[in-house]
Amino acid sequence: MDRLLVIGTGLIGGSFALAMRGAGTFSRIEGHDADPSVARRALQLGLIDAVVTDLSASIAVADAVLIAAPTGAIAPLVRRIVADVGSRSVTVFDAGSVKGSVLDALRRDGDIPPAFVPCHPMAGSERQGPDAADANLFRGRRVLVTPLPSTDRAAIERVRGWWTAAGAEVVETNPQIHDEMVALTSHLPHLIAYSYMAWADQPHSGVVREFTGPGLADFTRIAAADASMWREIIAENQTAVVAQYDGWLTLLTAAGDLLRDGRFDELEQLFARARAARSRLTDQSSG
Amino acid sequence: MDRLLVIGTGLIGGSFALAMRGAGTFSRIEGHDADPSVARRALQLGLIDAVVTDLSASIAVADAVLIAAPTGAIAPLVRRIVADVGSRSVTVFDAGSVKGSVLDALRRDGDIPPAFVPCHPMAGSERQGPDAADANLFRGRRVLVTPLPSTDRAAIERVRGWWTAAGAEVVETNPQIHDEMVALTSHLPHLIAYSYMAWADQPHSGVVREFTGPGLADFTRIAAADASMWREIIAENQTAVVAQYDGWLTLLTAAGDLLRDGRFDELEQLFARARAARSRLTDQSSG
Repeated sequence: MDRLLVIGTGLIGGSFALAMRGAGTFSRIEGHDADPSVARRALQLGLIDAVVTDLSASIAVADAVLIAAPTGAIAPLVRRIVADVGSRSVTVFDAGSVKGSVLDALRRDGDIPPAFVPCHPMAGSERQGPDAADANLFRGRRVLVTPLPSTDRAAIERVRGWWTAAGAEVVETNPQIHDEMVALTSHLPHLIAYSYMAWADQPHSGVVREFTGPGLADFTRIAAADASMWREIIAENQTAVVAQYDGWLTLLTAAGDLLRDGRFDELEQLFARARAARSRLTDQSSG
Repeated sequence: MDRLLVIGTGLIGGSFALAMRGAGTFSRIEGHDADPSVARRALQLGLIDAVVTDLSASIAVADAVLIAAPTGAIAPLVRRIVADVGSRSVTVFDAGSVKGSVLDALRRDGDIPPAFVPCHPMAGSERQGPDAADANLFRGRRVLVTPLPSTDRAAIERVRGWWTAAGAEVVETNPQIHDEMVALTSHLPHLIAYSYMAWADQPHSGVVREFTGPGLADFTRIAAADASMWREIIAENQTAVVAQYDGWLTLLTAAGDLLRDGRFDELEQLFARARAARSRLTDQSSG
């Protein structure tokens, strides 16, 4: 059986390692983290078999490498892995929330390695780190895979198999559609929820809590997510998020004008259209 | 023991009747609804003891009247009840989401009756009607009570007691603060969630579903609510919702400028402030 190297042993990397242990897919799972204490904790929790001491040496014997690191670190790691592995076959995949910026960074210094399969598991938690790792984190979730025409088909199939073994449903799409759609379904909602909580906090914080019910709690749940992680994701997907923001802002301010002008029949039509759209969009997802 | 009359036997009125039955607070509960089939269904489900046949006659013998009707209907019903009841003592309370417009409507044709205790139970469901009634709907929820200086203190205490018997926590505030705060914590979030779903539906609906995860589902859950009910609530609280909208829009567009200009350090500071605000606002609520 094959050897897996996990780079980044936090929530995502740790959960994948645990799921692979459960599935018995790999003979050995080694872990590396930019923060050595995170890798040691992953070992202590039994997520991995060993902490990497010499990254190049571990890469040189790995059959599969998951890069579960911040988006900005992915392209340099892919380059390094391909260099360290030499002529051996290795399958490299990531778990980044944005695809275009990683592929652009790789393109800037040569061809994109065919062994690299870009992946985005749509799973997460407000909790972070190896202690939050969960063998079932990916169960029932989608993993978006965005291969290029040059990507090795056998590598894609292996990666699909691993995610499937972790309980996920794999969907292939292209990087540009991916980035537009996650801007719409995830990145811009985070920006809006954060901006709403920042506003709600401003002059009135003493009283607001007594008026907070489950509606506001759900609406702003994503604003409980880590600020630096979301800063990075949104920065990496800036172009697509700006495009969705501009489009939505036009619709929002039109709704604001209907409100201000008392054109409530039209506002109700907008609400009814939105309600129908929500029931179409979410009737097969979790909510 | 006293007789309760419930006007509006849908989700809220039906749930209150059921909770009062459970608590054994009233000797008899009669129900009336603008839609006679809704009152008959409430009787069939055992929420009430009888359907009102002659509203004035029922009012004339009622000790307490809950008006669980659309906001626009509340002031005329309060006037009618006070007229029909004559010199007898009665306690009248409502369950409307907006307070200022009801009190303004009452003020326009005389003094506000001291027997009327304005209430807003912060409970609800995307489901409507007597079939959704639940004896525990108010359990652990807040009921905001907005008495005026002229409101009869004994009536306030009776109403507080009934909501408490239904499991709710009663909070007294004034009508203006109430309307500002519900605009902030509920009405504007509905407008935003509806506007977001209307945007998400526009050019891309075929693909969006595959990218929809729990984050978007939570963020837009309130957009599953009834469009005509929310049109009415927002229309009744127009002034306060516009004020919150204008304030928030300024903050949102500032965040949009940070995004567009790539000022990600400042954006992260905003996210971090919002995240801290959310944890302060929701750590005692449901989420």
